[in-house]
Amino acid sequence: RKLNSKYVFENKWFKVRQDTVEIAPGKIIDDYFLTEFPDVVFIVALTRDKKVILVREYKYGVNDIIVQIPAGYKEKGEQPLAAAQRELLEETGYSAPRWTTLGSFYSNTSRDRGNVHHLFLAQDALPVGKQNLDPTENIEVVLEPLEHVLEKVFNAEIKVAGAALALLLATQKK
Amino acid sequence: RKLNSKYVFENKWFKVRQDTVEIAPGKIIDDYFLTEFPDVVFIVALTRDKKVILVREYKYGVNDIIVQIPAGYKEKGEQPLAAAQRELLEETGYSAPRWTTLGSFYSNTSRDRGNVHHLFLAQDALPVGKQNLDPTENIEVVLEPLEHVLEKVFNAEIKVAGAALALLLATQKK
Repeated sequence: RKLNSKYVFENKWFKVRQDTVEIAPGKIIDDYFLTEFPDVVFIVALTRDKKVILVREYKYGVNDIIVQIPAGYKEKGEQPLAAAQRELLEETGYSAPRWTTLGSFYSNTSRDRGNVHHLFLAQDALPVGKQNLDPTENIEVVLEPLEHVLEKVFNAEIKVAGAALALLLATQKK
Repeated sequence: RKLNSKYVFENKWFKVRQDTVEIAPGKIIDDYFLTEFPDVVFIVALTRDKKVILVREYKYGVNDIIVQIPAGYKEKGEQPLAAAQRELLEETGYSAPRWTTLGSFYSNTSRDRGNVHHLFLAQDALPVGKQNLDPTENIEVVLEPLEHVLEKVFNAEIKVAGAALALLLATQKK
């Protein structure tokens, strides 16, 4: 039972909250710290010939070049599907007429509000424009047959958990 | 290129780091904030009759009762496999003679060092003792046939991304 809650650290990307919690009758702790990250959308986008649209990008947090599917933070007030459609277009220049949800999953249930990952399948994707990237982003778009990409999931070469999960779920739906 | 790095917030469970980064020649930002969460282990533990050992527990972060597979933070200096074996025993009282890795995946590549999720398959699991829980933990152990559990992954009733990914990967290896 939450007795009190305050933000103790904030920046543009996430917040840190400190809660006072009654964990059992009469037993109170005042140092339950948790983060508040925005939700994330992941998009398995397939072209008509069943190729997956992958993005290849240097990621500062892990100091590594990562190959995964288009993904990004959902903006405040934005619907998950709208965020997914926006991210696909911005990161790759592709758009798709057919969208299916693959479910929403928590990334962290203990030390965040959940940091929900909303997973989507987009089918019959077509190039409709140019990438629209932040000045700090440098994303290479790569198309690969779905079977090759699944092999990379099983070998943990697709190293991002949300992306790997979305790809495995997509094979059940398409 | 990282020019400077300092911790700006710390508690027992995670840290917040502020880096100064040269993102392009001559272009420097001093407000790259990221978290440092410990790595997490997830265990798909199967009994001899192919039942999955699930745990059912209230999680404060999401204020919900969560059904997932045994999981927990890796301690500093601990090997991922050792952490997985410890967590399985502590949370469920089960131990297993056969362990296989299902791969390691990043949870967050931008705003954390990665928060790596190490996924394992444990086979022929047997009850060998009692749960060994923290005073604040209250975990119910539930055994369910693998096919039922996979159905719950496809319906996003297993709501934790790392657990769902581990279960789908396990079906390829067992």
